[in-house]
Amino acid sequence: MSGLQGMHFVAGSAESGGGEVFHGVDPIAGKDLEPGYAEATPEQVARACDAAAAAAPAFAATAPAKRAALLRAIADGLDGLGGDLVERMQAETALPAGRVAGERARTVMQLQQFAALLDDGSWVDAHIDHGDATRAPMPKPDLRRMLVPLGPVAVFGASNFPLAYSVAGGDTASALAAGCPVVVKGHPAHPGTSELVGRVIFDAVQALGLPAGTFSLLHGRTQATGGALVQNAAIKAVGFTGSHGGGRALFQQAADRDEPIPMFAEMGSANPLVVLPKALATRGSQIAEQVAASCLLAQGQFCTKPGLVLWLCGEGDESFYSVLRERLCSAPSGPTVHSSIRNSYERAIADVSALPVEVDRATAPAELGVAEVSPALLRASPEAVLNNERLRSEIYGPAMLTVACRTMAELQQVIDSLSGHLTATVHGDEDDFSTHQPVLDSLRRKVGRIIANGVPTGVEVSTAMVHGGPYPAATDARYSAVGTTSIQRWVRPACWQDWPQDLLPIELRDGNPRGIQRLVNGKIES
Amino acid sequence: MSGLQGMHFVAGSAESGGGEVFHGVDPIAGKDLEPGYAEATPEQVARACDAAAAAAPAFAATAPAKRAALLRAIADGLDGLGGDLVERMQAETALPAGRVAGERARTVMQLQQFAALLDDGSWVDAHIDHGDATRAPMPKPDLRRMLVPLGPVAVFGASNFPLAYSVAGGDTASALAAGCPVVVKGHPAHPGTSELVGRVIFDAVQALGLPAGTFSLLHGRTQATGGALVQNAAIKAVGFTGSHGGGRALFQQAADRDEPIPMFAEMGSANPLVVLPKALATRGSQIAEQVAASCLLAQGQFCTKPGLVLWLCGEGDESFYSVLRERLCSAPSGPTVHSSIRNSYERAIADVSALPVEVDRATAPAELGVAEVSPALLRASPEAVLNNERLRSEIYGPAMLTVACRTMAELQQVIDSLSGHLTATVHGDEDDFSTHQPVLDSLRRKVGRIIANGVPTGVEVSTAMVHGGPYPAATDARYSAVGTTSIQRWVRPACWQDWPQDLLPIELRDGNPRGIQRLVNGKIES
Repeated sequence: MSGLQGMHFVAGSAESGGGEVFHGVDPIAGKDLEPGYAEATPEQVARACDAAAAAAPAFAATAPAKRAALLRAIADGLDGLGGDLVERMQAETALPAGRVAGERARTVMQLQQFAALLDDGSWVDAHIDHGDATRAPMPKPDLRRMLVPLGPVAVFGASNFPLAYSVAGGDTASALAAGCPVVVKGHPAHPGTSELVGRVIFDAVQALGLPAGTFSLLHGRTQATGGALVQNAAIKAVGFTGSHGGGRALFQQAADRDEPIPMFAEMGSANPLVVLPKALATRGSQIAEQVAASCLLAQGQFCTKPGLVLWLCGEGDESFYSVLRERLCSAPSGPTVHSSIRNSYERAIADVSALPVEVDRATAPAELGVAEVSPALLRASPEAVLNNERLRSEIYGPAMLTVACRTMAELQQVIDSLSGHLTATVHGDEDDFSTHQPVLDSLRRKVGRIIANGVPTGVEVSTAMVHGGPYPAATDARYSAVGTTSIQRWVRPACWQDWPQDLLPIELRDGNPRGIQRLVNGKIES
Repeated sequence: MSGLQGMHFVAGSAESGGGEVFHGVDPIAGKDLEPGYAEATPEQVARACDAAAAAAPAFAATAPAKRAALLRAIADGLDGLGGDLVERMQAETALPAGRVAGERARTVMQLQQFAALLDDGSWVDAHIDHGDATRAPMPKPDLRRMLVPLGPVAVFGASNFPLAYSVAGGDTASALAAGCPVVVKGHPAHPGTSELVGRVIFDAVQALGLPAGTFSLLHGRTQATGGALVQNAAIKAVGFTGSHGGGRALFQQAADRDEPIPMFAEMGSANPLVVLPKALATRGSQIAEQVAASCLLAQGQFCTKPGLVLWLCGEGDESFYSVLRERLCSAPSGPTVHSSIRNSYERAIADVSALPVEVDRATAPAELGVAEVSPALLRASPEAVLNNERLRSEIYGPAMLTVACRTMAELQQVIDSLSGHLTATVHGDEDDFSTHQPVLDSLRRKVGRIIANGVPTGVEVSTAMVHGGPYPAATDARYSAVGTTSIQRWVRPACWQDWPQDLLPIELRDGNPRGIQRLVNGKIES
């Protein structure tokens, strides 16, 4: 791969690591890809964090237009990587070329959306309450409030979105937009992709004359490196997308620090999907086609994959199930991003096979390549689901657990037993929705996003999107990891009382020189 | 005291506790007040939490007007307590009658502000992004997002604000406004005040026909009771105002749960105050009068008490210091809310006396009553402050640490060494502010609110207020505990995708039937 040198980018310096060497792996051939990446040393982690802390005040004080220029330069740089990026990302992840192009377009669009947010400027949520020196018994002070950056943010790249949730993904874009320096730990499954993207950001930071500590990229595959990053006192917030085990461990480290810090982890989700009776009767086969396709997308490597499908026994259920079975059990096997994903998938299937669960698969795992998985259709009774927490949580990969309920009460019971998920989906026709209101209310309370007559995959990037949800889908349901509101994870309000006009942030000055939307004395300023 | 019976209010039932009995204490006489309060049993804690969980869906679904009526009924009930409340609160806390009346007025006003917020309705932050079925390659879904309640909230009453930060204080008002049932653990220093206020809420919940689990009040003084509350799976968020030790311990319990929950603790703050040279020269004595009065208010029992006063040696410093000394060392001793506050205060003074600190006091502690404290003026060198973390953190009570810096660099160093505080205050005249910009920038980054030419006490309740700040002032700087934005602690966004119009929350329906402010396709709807 042209130009790859196994580089970390540590606060303005491109350099090798000093720890154990690992490689990106071609998941189809099962072969190491050059170059090797030496794990970041503790010194490199500390240097990246120290530089981020040193850069934080100056970066926070940059004009929004400067940060918008940075985001646009990164977006242009991603486009400029052209075929090199497609080739390396495909080699490392086995994701098809069309998906790589689509994910790049989405990543570029996210960066541009945050640049536009900065141009607009209203995101700082300015509130101004004028004072009143004549108020009795106490004069009323002049109070002005807006959002300010928290400081350096640590970002953990995800395995399944090597661009959109990684080095220049939504976490990095939103943190840089907020004015927070970023230290990324790249995902070890695609270090080459990370290096390519990291160099783009490194170059953009230099070209714009921003402080060197504005951005660092560290490679590593041990828990020690990630742990050292989260525990470094310079880091003021953490963004993570990945497994429950990894996310929870880092959450605990963030909470246990001398100074605990906010840690937003988006973790597993089974994304329950319910088919209601009239929809099942009139278009069961069609829904099954749609849901199976959503489940099989990229070998099920989506956090919004529909993994738990429920319905009420009745007209149409047989053809619904037979189409699901036909689609899942005839689907070709395919490569995952990394053999560790395949191994976790097989372990999960083995775990549920030990429970009262029917397992249907076209291809036995023994016949598959090192990183290859074959879809699995699982079937369990409502009782089995109620009795086994494992059946209510995610199986990462192309597996779907199906549960036929005999009565609405049984369906309600299963839904009530669920913990938090990112999404839920309901298929219904005519009065299906209104006659199942209590079931749907319960389902809505468990999730960040509820979808009618669609599929949960395909997360629209917009201000109304919520990608997050009650634990264990995420560590803090109050935030979304997708859409421009995700910037709220990295900022806090600050308030200036009776402060001299000319020393206030420009967003809070009289006359509204930035022309942003502000709330003045409780009303939108006109 | 008329009507007090030592009652807990557990999910619609007024009942005694079953644990060890404790009493409110008259801090002046040092005598127990009747009745006794038996600590809540683990069964009562669990029952309150279970009922809150059972009530949560119905309470979340109440019309905003109903919740506004609840808040107004509580406000009216507080007013209706008349002299009974003043008498009991004075007896339990030794706070003067004027303060009790003022705090009641503030508490009533807070409840009314949240009722008005519900009437207005725009706080749900509705975002609507319309779909586009013709978009290629994928149709764009219709997405609608608004804030929804997290579920039952545990509130810990504060010792220093028996009304405004307690049973019906800002945490309870904001949580009820959000649609979250509340379980309060009253502060053991004023159980009678808590019972009086608790009965008001209990009666209001009944009168409005709300679910019994909407509100509970538990009495207790052991860590076990508070811990059981935070660790109960039904509780989905925690609000706390109090000491660093208590807040941090509960924060850790909240983070260590199987399902970690958001925990907002507002803890200690030294509220640094800086006097710049020109202000010192021209009005040093006047500033000293103002700052001393702010420090001595209610025996220093304010979280925003100015406890760390810094200045640059030069013209006016001697008269500034002599007025501070005169005011603090001639101020009468007085009672704290509880003898434990006095004991902590004396321990803190003893701790700093062991460091290179000059301590001036008018009255030696041996001459004081059981809950009585005398003000202390402390003086330390910048080096001593840099070398001793204890000198950079709060001493709760009427103590002020003064630090004269020889150079601006020294002042900058001391400020850079500070951790998070609720507020900072700067006194400056003419070009004082502009010539000390780096010092002031550093100071601003440490705090939630920065004040020019005033005092930090007297927290205005308005939308632009920020009462919170970087750790250890609070556990999450992203939220304020005062003002209507404090409701954001108890809510999360939820998103409906392509959901049937008539089953959407009314706030998200086409035509905007509630007439609230909404962002539609990125623009404010007109």
